[in-house]
Amino acid sequence: MSLWQSAIQTVKKNHLTGQKPQKKASQKPEFGNRGMSLEDDINDTNAYYLARELAVIHKKPTPVQIVRVDYPKRSNATIKEAYFKKPSTTDYNGVYKGKYLDFEAKETKNKTAFPLSNFHPHQIEHMKQVRNQDGVAFIITSFSVLGEVYLTMFDAFLPFWERMLSGGRKSITVDEIRQYSDQIPYGLNPRLDFLAIIDQKCF
Amino acid sequence: MSLWQSAIQTVKKNHLTGQKPQKKASQKPEFGNRGMSLEDDINDTNAYYLARELAVIHKKPTPVQIVRVDYPKRSNATIKEAYFKKPSTTDYNGVYKGKYLDFEAKETKNKTAFPLSNFHPHQIEHMKQVRNQDGVAFIITSFSVLGEVYLTMFDAFLPFWERMLSGGRKSITVDEIRQYSDQIPYGLNPRLDFLAIIDQKCF
Repeated sequence: MSLWQSAIQTVKKNHLTGQKPQKKASQKPEFGNRGMSLEDDINDTNAYYLARELAVIHKKPTPVQIVRVDYPKRSNATIKEAYFKKPSTTDYNGVYKGKYLDFEAKETKNKTAFPLSNFHPHQIEHMKQVRNQDGVAFIITSFSVLGEVYLTMFDAFLPFWERMLSGGRKSITVDEIRQYSDQIPYGLNPRLDFLAIIDQKCF
Repeated sequence: MSLWQSAIQTVKKNHLTGQKPQKKASQKPEFGNRGMSLEDDINDTNAYYLARELAVIHKKPTPVQIVRVDYPKRSNATIKEAYFKKPSTTDYNGVYKGKYLDFEAKETKNKTAFPLSNFHPHQIEHMKQVRNQDGVAFIITSFSVLGEVYLTMFDAFLPFWERMLSGGRKSITVDEIRQYSDQIPYGLNPRLDFLAIIDQKCF
């Protein structure tokens, strides 16, 4: 049984018996990122929100430049040559209680800083445009080795991007992220309840 | 010189000389859809909105299931086998004055009715979810032979979809579309100013 399945079993059992989960001496989160990618966690969270009619948020398809397609029939057309395109927007957007949400989610194995090379200049420009239209723009960063995930509102993130553009460091330190962001705790369902933070920030 | 270039020349000349454009005896729109697809017209309109900071609306990339990729280097990876996936959402979404907009745009050569087979059930379900989150969902339909483009709010469109589901006709007649929609007139720039209609409906 995997650790993940084990955690689910424990929760189910405690639920049935009415027991509170035992507190662990460890500082580690109870439901950590056990082999799931940040993208998986966010997609699962969005599926949870959608199923409960809490929000409608989707990941955009990967942008692809299609060059050659074989059409034996339209229904089973096969793309034979295509290339990845640089994204001109963020990966995720949607609607929550009437508000437009727009965000990019990235993870790093770095333990001390988040490299800004994870973001494209186009994406930053896009988030500026979104903010200027009164949309809610933010960034989710995961330090996968530390097991910590943060939500940084775009306005808090932008000064670090601009510091890099003016010749400063090309990353945001963990301490800076901690100071200017809210941590999204790992949960069982949803796994990363980022809307709880949006609730505090925007409603 | 194409008709389109000719129209631009005429407008430029009239602008320079201060002359009003001559009215034509013809009932045809002055700036018709002369060989441009609806998608081109909407993409151009969205680019116009974006450049003037009026709205941030993008077409989503075509969803593709990537099966095989050659990686000589990551930077020039070539997709060698991929398939088109059915879209689970609409093609366009974005933010306008803080509101979340979401729409699907389709055209037909049919002169008397708009076939509902142009829409996937998933897309209708998605627009329901958007509306339930207080997003603004609508449909843009183009009768390319008639040169007429309409914006139908999702709540006005849904009864026709449900009529089909209960065994009724599989299309919306032109007269029905005219009755329950607003026509988007062709313009020079932007080509299809659909936000003018959203302004009336939602602000």
